Amino acid sequence: MTRFALKLEYDGTGFAGWQHQKDLLSLQQLLEEAAGHLSDEPVRSITAGRTDAGVHASGQVAHIDLERKIAPHALLQALNFYLIPHAFVVRDVAIVDAQWNARFSARARHYRYDILNRAARPGLLQNRVWHLKPRLDIAAMREAARHLLGKHDFTSFRAASCQAHSPVRTLDRLEVLCDGEMIHIFAEARSFLHHQVRNMVGTLKMVGEGKLSAAAMPGILAACHRAAAGQTAPPDGLFLTQVVYEPDPFAGADKVGFAAS
Amino acid sequence: MTRFALKLEYDGTGFAGWQHQKDLLSLQQLLEEAAGHLSDEPVRSITAGRTDAGVHASGQVAHIDLERKIAPHALLQALNFYLIPHAFVVRDVAIVDAQWNARFSARARHYRYDILNRAARPGLLQNRVWHLKPRLDIAAMREAARHLLGKHDFTSFRAASCQAHSPVRTLDRLEVLCDGEMIHIFAEARSFLHHQVRNMVGTLKMVGEGKLSAAAMPGILAACHRAAAGQTAPPDGLFLTQVVYEPDPFAGADKVGFAAS
Repeated sequence: MTRFALKLEYDGTGFAGWQHQKDLLSLQQLLEEAAGHLSDEPVRSITAGRTDAGVHASGQVAHIDLERKIAPHALLQALNFYLIPHAFVVRDVAIVDAQWNARFSARARHYRYDILNRAARPGLLQNRVWHLKPRLDIAAMREAARHLLGKHDFTSFRAASCQAHSPVRTLDRLEVLCDGEMIHIFAEARSFLHHQVRNMVGTLKMVGEGKLSAAAMPGILAACHRAAAGQTAPPDGLFLTQVVYEPDPFAGADKVGFAAS
Repeated sequence: MTRFALKLEYDGTGFAGWQHQKDLLSLQQLLEEAAGHLSDEPVRSITAGRTDAGVHASGQVAHIDLERKIAPHALLQALNFYLIPHAFVVRDVAIVDAQWNARFSARARHYRYDILNRAARPGLLQNRVWHLKPRLDIAAMREAARHLLGKHDFTSFRAASCQAHSPVRTLDRLEVLCDGEMIHIFAEARSFLHHQVRNMVGTLKMVGEGKLSAAAMPGILAACHRAAAGQTAPPDGLFLTQVVYEPDPFAGADKVGFAAS
């Protein structure tokens, strides 16, 4: 058996999310069916982040095992052929050892959340942003974000459906950048609770609207109750941009991304 | 009559281009029909750049005349309501005087052309990039671009259908920026010939592939013949990002973009 790490990009619009769902189209199903064309056995995949329906990725990572040793550039071309016509592609492929695991070897997950803050609805970024008309108070959002940094019990930002054993997470980055009418919120941690990024963004948005104060953040964390925090931001604006491994299995794979011309 | 300047954003995919075309859906038709709901007379629009089918815009500018004086934020909301469900929105509105003209008052047009340079087809940017698999030689493309800067007879880069009186244009910027697997080409001039940006990009691409040398550019310009230059790049990667006016009619209109919350 050979284990392959796959770097994946997709537009989550119209998918039921990463994970298999009965009677709904999932990214996991598409990937495993594509890989199944290259194997006599059904192929199972493990992923770094089981993104929700409508959430996008430019740097999702998964691994699969195949009986045959296929050249990475050939696997990339074959999988992308079988993934047509979906908005889902394999960006890079690397051979990893049998102990390497896309989920458990991950050292950090990086997400970006995009808000379009203007009167006009999106003309170029439909389904890719959270469109908010009132001008948000960026300084207040930044102050609120600083309160959430570090190691906390994030129960107040955790979906009821979250299956993690512990609600404690260490948030390494929560940064609000403003680029004209676009607001980018960058969130980085070893791992996140279910809906944690969307619940933090929804709470920051209410701070930006003046409906919550930045100074309320410590109390919201201490409450350890989902109702204490703000709304859940829609999936549209969320992108899984990077999964960090040490060493990076794709570091030497740059040539793969270009080998198949 | 009141003249309104409109800043427009659209995804050109699926449109027949800016200009009216019999039996095909044009952006001009949609805008004029939307504005027609606010007028007893048919409304005609003048635009800064008549973009081709499939070309996008984040900063197109047009003007229309209406009998009634409508508040800019109310006009923005009304036009965007009538433009639903199209990927076409009015980003900003400003009242201008009767001599102001979206086309003839323009001091410069800024375009950006995006190339996705990697093995995998686009997963997030379908119809928004030119996907090229072989790694392009950016340094050679930059050298070629420098030869095209300044005032030249651009006949070799002009579509047969071009209706401009003179083939002489002054190219103020043609810059190739590389951001990972994305290549952005920025082109700025007072005005461009028909297909000039796409023909320059198609020629730079052939330089990047090693099929043409950067040193061939002066000869290509001197030939004054379309066949001397390279291919026409597809419309997908092209964005009209800005039209420059002095003074900028939208400079005081920032509040309009946010007034309608």
